[in-house]
Amino acid sequence: MKIAVLGTGMVGETIGSRLIELGHEVKMGSRTPDNEKAAEWVRKNGARASQGTFKDAAAFGELLFNCTMGVASIEVLASAGAANLDGKVLIDVSNPLDFSQGMPPSLTICNTNSLGEEIQKAFPGLKVVKALNTMWCGLMVNPNMLQEGNHTAFISGNDEGAKAKTREIMHAFGWKDENILDLGDISTARGTEMLLPIWLRTWAALGTGAFNFKLVK
Amino acid sequence: MKIAVLGTGMVGETIGSRLIELGHEVKMGSRTPDNEKAAEWVRKNGARASQGTFKDAAAFGELLFNCTMGVASIEVLASAGAANLDGKVLIDVSNPLDFSQGMPPSLTICNTNSLGEEIQKAFPGLKVVKALNTMWCGLMVNPNMLQEGNHTAFISGNDEGAKAKTREIMHAFGWKDENILDLGDISTARGTEMLLPIWLRTWAALGTGAFNFKLVK
Repeated sequence: MKIAVLGTGMVGETIGSRLIELGHEVKMGSRTPDNEKAAEWVRKNGARASQGTFKDAAAFGELLFNCTMGVASIEVLASAGAANLDGKVLIDVSNPLDFSQGMPPSLTICNTNSLGEEIQKAFPGLKVVKALNTMWCGLMVNPNMLQEGNHTAFISGNDEGAKAKTREIMHAFGWKDENILDLGDISTARGTEMLLPIWLRTWAALGTGAFNFKLVK
Repeated sequence: MKIAVLGTGMVGETIGSRLIELGHEVKMGSRTPDNEKAAEWVRKNGARASQGTFKDAAAFGELLFNCTMGVASIEVLASAGAANLDGKVLIDVSNPLDFSQGMPPSLTICNTNSLGEEIQKAFPGLKVVKALNTMWCGLMVNPNMLQEGNHTAFISGNDEGAKAKTREIMHAFGWKDENILDLGDISTARGTEMLLPIWLRTWAALGTGAFNFKLVK
């Protein structure tokens, strides 16, 4: 499949490389067509990897991953152009983290709203699925690195077809279906985004991001 | 030990009964000395159980459990009187849930502050330990009902001695030490209180409160 990865940070690189490894064609989008980090990622990932602006990437992708900083996501998607987004699935792994007041970051939006909801409202033609935003990126694309993959990922979104498509991609990453919990519509992204404060403090307590939470019942 | 349980709701009843079972003397505190729910709890729990006002209970207890609704906690503790709180450990299992806008509740305080911190600020003589607030009360006092107790409880607080005392009580409830994660000072209660939104949505998705999250690493 042709997939757009929006964002050139560690999350974008990790997800982009894994998608290439799985046989997809991936265009990494950034503000400029010749972003150096994206160029380096393309050099590493071979012929199925390419780069462009956010607009180029969105036009290219049949499915999109939002790997931008949460505070920039709405602006990035606006620059991609609604016509390049309409009808497509956006897997939103971003979090509305505010680093401006130091560490650990707080959230720019939470409690009675979420970034996932804001993106869905701003781009009603997109099928937004909040997913994989509750863990370190290495684990997003390779859950089996911990406890044979037996820990939990959450998904939230209004469109059942888009959630099914997201599950397919997650299965390819190594997620077992029974470890993916569908919380409901996109408003449930409040729950997963608000998991970040304990994620950050657990990360600080353990000194590593290689952990996740498993639902035990 | 003489322990005060502040609050007559399901959480207070459950914790109070378990403490009685473990051999402690427990006074359940409420707004009035003759609260009917507390009286019923006393009748069920025998000679080591008693009831009184919040002030009576705080005066009685060497250690206190805050099992009141989060929105009422500061007022309840104020009515208990600083002299009855000073130097004592308060295990705070409450959450700042706002039910006024319907279900699921939002939080009255979060992100850059927490109820745990507000209680600590309002009553500097108390040694506040946020604990056990991330799960259903049945599980708080009996972790072994799920997966041999192998799931995670978090503690937050400024006083190391108070956290050690809290661990002792939790051990008696059945918590293994390796399943108790000390996140740090009381500001880390932001993390555990903000776990409530995903807890509430997971509860809705599963249709039961008999679940918890396990840290997998």
